[in-house]
Amino acid sequence: MGTVKVALLGAGTVGSQVFRLLQEESSDLAARAGTDIEVNAVVVRDVNAERDVDIPTDLLTTDAYAAIEGADLVVELIGGIEPPRTFVTEALKQGKTVVTGNKALLAANGPELYELAAEKGADLYYEAAVAGAVPVVYGLRESLAGDRITSVLGIVNGTTNFILDAMATTGASYEDALAEAQRLGFAEADPTADVDGLDAAAKCAILASLAFHTRVSIDDVATEGISNITAADIAEAKASDHVIKLLAIAERVPNPDGEGEAVSVRVHPTLVPFDHPLATVNGAFNAIVIEGEAAGRLMFYGQGAGGAPTASAVLSDVVAAASHLAHGGNAPRELIYANLPVLSAQEATTHYQMRIVVEDRIGVLAEVAGIFADNGVSIKGVQQSNEVCVEDEAPGEAPVREKNPATVTISTHSAREGDLQQVVTALEVSPAVVRVDSTLRIVG
Amino acid sequence: MGTVKVALLGAGTVGSQVFRLLQEESSDLAARAGTDIEVNAVVVRDVNAERDVDIPTDLLTTDAYAAIEGADLVVELIGGIEPPRTFVTEALKQGKTVVTGNKALLAANGPELYELAAEKGADLYYEAAVAGAVPVVYGLRESLAGDRITSVLGIVNGTTNFILDAMATTGASYEDALAEAQRLGFAEADPTADVDGLDAAAKCAILASLAFHTRVSIDDVATEGISNITAADIAEAKASDHVIKLLAIAERVPNPDGEGEAVSVRVHPTLVPFDHPLATVNGAFNAIVIEGEAAGRLMFYGQGAGGAPTASAVLSDVVAAASHLAHGGNAPRELIYANLPVLSAQEATTHYQMRIVVEDRIGVLAEVAGIFADNGVSIKGVQQSNEVCVEDEAPGEAPVREKNPATVTISTHSAREGDLQQVVTALEVSPAVVRVDSTLRIVG
Repeated sequence: MGTVKVALLGAGTVGSQVFRLLQEESSDLAARAGTDIEVNAVVVRDVNAERDVDIPTDLLTTDAYAAIEGADLVVELIGGIEPPRTFVTEALKQGKTVVTGNKALLAANGPELYELAAEKGADLYYEAAVAGAVPVVYGLRESLAGDRITSVLGIVNGTTNFILDAMATTGASYEDALAEAQRLGFAEADPTADVDGLDAAAKCAILASLAFHTRVSIDDVATEGISNITAADIAEAKASDHVIKLLAIAERVPNPDGEGEAVSVRVHPTLVPFDHPLATVNGAFNAIVIEGEAAGRLMFYGQGAGGAPTASAVLSDVVAAASHLAHGGNAPRELIYANLPVLSAQEATTHYQMRIVVEDRIGVLAEVAGIFADNGVSIKGVQQSNEVCVEDEAPGEAPVREKNPATVTISTHSAREGDLQQVVTALEVSPAVVRVDSTLRIVG
Repeated sequence: MGTVKVALLGAGTVGSQVFRLLQEESSDLAARAGTDIEVNAVVVRDVNAERDVDIPTDLLTTDAYAAIEGADLVVELIGGIEPPRTFVTEALKQGKTVVTGNKALLAANGPELYELAAEKGADLYYEAAVAGAVPVVYGLRESLAGDRITSVLGIVNGTTNFILDAMATTGASYEDALAEAQRLGFAEADPTADVDGLDAAAKCAILASLAFHTRVSIDDVATEGISNITAADIAEAKASDHVIKLLAIAERVPNPDGEGEAVSVRVHPTLVPFDHPLATVNGAFNAIVIEGEAAGRLMFYGQGAGGAPTASAVLSDVVAAASHLAHGGNAPRELIYANLPVLSAQEATTHYQMRIVVEDRIGVLAEVAGIFADNGVSIKGVQQSNEVCVEDEAPGEAPVREKNPATVTISTHSAREGDLQQVVTALEVSPAVVRVDSTLRIVG
């Protein structure tokens, strides 16, 4: 193959940077791939739209099918499920190599796309789908192919990390930090997919599938976002040498229902101790900590979003794909040979730290402790303070009258998530408890 | 190819772990490689020696040539230049795939081995040669193949990082920290290769070759070790929010002698600001920060030494190699197409921070500043203190008498290393200067 012909689907933030770099670095990329790489179509919705990067008008087209037909390598950077699903399916059906950065598509339709690729002998690359420039897909598919991975913990959503970091640094409320993130372009006008943890959950599913050779979809991921995190939570975390991070967690665990192992996958705000490598991952950066039985702890860190960083990840796939097209070889296949059961949200094992406002009278702690014991949850530590946090009441609203209340922070040993949730439910109706102020899971 | 037959050369700390993991994880590794992988010879010096791991006696042999002859894949984990050079050469001559973790061999004889491999169409893998389990060779060869790397900064020697970390944490002297590292097994009885920076220089050469597609050998790397670092240096660094780390630095820089670009490679103790990601890399851990034009800053972090972590890196190569042997494809070739000039030690551009003891009289600062100006070095900041550090005098020796001395810390803007060294030489003979206490380079 003299020249690898590329159809670029999408010329938005990432697509336009990919186009630019393919032009500017063409001789370097050709040297590395061992073949020339040439864009011969850029598929867009509107050929007359304004773009960040100049694209010759004779390359621009709205005809995706003709572009795919004429290409060796299809790079899909449109985003969202449709039309990418249709286009990627069409490309794989024709046996074309596909590079995509589309985590939503892979988390939703990954299995059928992987199967189609395998059936047609087509290659599918997706480094850019998780954590932008951070090469964690390579890390899991290739660098750790000789190891047995026990856990993957990641800060994989820059928007929520920016918001939590701003709250920790400035003491801002969640609402103010979100507004600031929107003003600076780190959060979208509709921030739901980020702040509710859905974006992180899609990436968690991809990471877990790669780490444990098991098919994990976004629906398997127990997901909780950051919109309930208060300034008081952040301040209390800081006082005990923790920061709150939204983590995507994928763990290999003993199967609670029988023999062997299982996979636990979840996304939730998490207390991370200051000395954990993820604690200092600030702003919109991403980082993934992988524990391998032989390798021990590894961390990959870098920019998780943005046109150029994501384009860097796309181009690493383009170079690998072009090299394979020209000289033989294939992308690593999706491997699901382990096929481990995926635990339900209730079966996951976690540690809680709860802040509870209780009546300040003799016997209250015994009553509270009894609720934990009744549900089979072991208490690790209790700390009492008479300061009641009232920062979170709605502006203008009169402070809630509480008769001699006290605040108690209770941390638990590791326990079933379902049991922990029952503890919370029981606490909320206990006469000893004024209210459960917050429940946060702790890493480790 | 039904089964990939492996000859394992060496059964020491790493080799024995590789053997163990190849047995224990054989079904997983086979699933990932798409072929069975079987060790059919383990070459050792003494078949009767005691080993960490049980190896069946019928596999043990002293006959490396017969083992190579009978293998598809040769894994060299003996270490040192000879006999590995002879064995690896023999294997490549026969067109066998070679996996090695031998940075000394690659830094000394890499070019001839890469050429031989290319000539014979044989594959050479060496993930374990740099930073143990940290997949930085993959990172540079594959994950960043679509980017233009501007710099690589690494903590790539665990022994020196352990010593410097111990000095910073406990205030210990270099000698005491080294003794402690030796006691704990983090430093060898003869620590020269580590503390003089030679091990880091070998890795620096490999990283620079990969990052800049240019042949860089260990002799190109300007190397300074850590044995002159004093407790006073560490304390002063801390007071200005820095830590001292031994860094391997490889940078793409403008060519001072003309058009285009050049490569600057060096290993030296470096002042790293607290908020730099490398500042918190403690103990025997390794980390490499790579800056790519599109990717921005990436960091890879993990265990840089030890049997199992290094074995994890070896096995990732073994899986890739076995997959390629069974299903086609090749290791990335050594690429030296860029062939950039490598700067001499004098031509590198660095920033200094110097601690100078000067006479305490009017006009001294002007004289000192004049020396910088005469050599074309721009001063960034000056800080004066009347405390003179005497921690470093030899035990039992009387304190040096100094007439009203003052200590001045001067930081420079970026300047030619040769000019900075001339400044130091001129300071040392200046009547205004009692002595130059320390000179340290600063990152960034």
